[in-house]
Amino acid sequence: MFSPLIDELMSSLRCLPGVGPKSAQRMALHLLERDREGAERLAQSLHKAVEGVGRCKSCRTLTEQDFCGICNNARRDSSIICVVETPADVLAIEQAGTYQGKYFVLLGHLSPIDGIGPEDIGIDQLINLLQQATANAEPIKEIILATNPTVEGEATAYYISERAKHHNVLVSRIAHGVPLGGELEFIDGGTLAHAFSSRRSF
Amino acid sequence: MFSPLIDELMSSLRCLPGVGPKSAQRMALHLLERDREGAERLAQSLHKAVEGVGRCKSCRTLTEQDFCGICNNARRDSSIICVVETPADVLAIEQAGTYQGKYFVLLGHLSPIDGIGPEDIGIDQLINLLQQATANAEPIKEIILATNPTVEGEATAYYISERAKHHNVLVSRIAHGVPLGGELEFIDGGTLAHAFSSRRSF
Repeated sequence: MFSPLIDELMSSLRCLPGVGPKSAQRMALHLLERDREGAERLAQSLHKAVEGVGRCKSCRTLTEQDFCGICNNARRDSSIICVVETPADVLAIEQAGTYQGKYFVLLGHLSPIDGIGPEDIGIDQLINLLQQATANAEPIKEIILATNPTVEGEATAYYISERAKHHNVLVSRIAHGVPLGGELEFIDGGTLAHAFSSRRSF
Repeated sequence: MFSPLIDELMSSLRCLPGVGPKSAQRMALHLLERDREGAERLAQSLHKAVEGVGRCKSCRTLTEQDFCGICNNARRDSSIICVVETPADVLAIEQAGTYQGKYFVLLGHLSPIDGIGPEDIGIDQLINLLQQATANAEPIKEIILATNPTVEGEATAYYISERAKHHNVLVSRIAHGVPLGGELEFIDGGTLAHAFSSRRSF
């Protein structure tokens, strides 16, 4: 209906998560009618990010440097590693503001059905880290597994704990239960069951 | 928090309508983790569209050609012009499928408070079209005003009707009232008042 370049822009915008045909149309027309400068800036940022952003050589998070800001920070405790699924999880934990150790970002989870095995989410690299730290006489004391409480996340956590337990390191899993401010009435059965089975003495 | 290129990408994504900080973060991480090809394609499309897309010389809609598909279509009735605010309005009317005339796209509406006057929305060009058509002995018979039923849209329609009435042309406004399938119970008072004052004998 629109001219070819506009149609092409609309279909390209569909690669953004949560953008359907109607939003893509609104976005394309908004940019062309009212914000061509912003559109050009977005094109540049996309291009630079795709070209420049790789993975941190230590923790695998997304960064354009060799090592990310947290891995480079000498004040972070190198003896604790928190394993998460995505860079967004790192941000969430950092915003909570209590964790002072380092991270390891899987960028995914084990999912045999999608053909994602341990090598795709860098578990060998994590085990290497453990061995190297021990060899350097700065052993890692604890690995905190903070993958999502989904079937795949639990399987990934279990697999990592099995691999890590041969390396003289404490492996822990973050607690699951009723969230703060949550009302029992609205909590799902799975979470409640977990909260009961993991109850602590008062 | 993220590395500079990722932060820059997130802030650039905010130029899209309806995209706040959380969505921008989700989009940036999704593209970098899972769809770099799509991101590169989007960058190219944005760049090409910003460079290539201008306005149709006749109807002012967005197109990369000199004249848009509808203005170029010899089977459309050149004696009727429908005035709309945006290219999305053209699409909506085309999808209704009954209108066979041509369009004139203002790309905006009169809005003195934002400094948008008649020259910014091409009203002189519209009057020129009228004069030229008369000079070429193919006069325009009717102008249908389909601007939005907002304060600015109504003012724009009124202004165009005042300017056009000196050029021997019928000026009409699309009907406003209860939409098909609308239930009276949920229709706002302004629309109902309009529906009553514009009632037709049965």
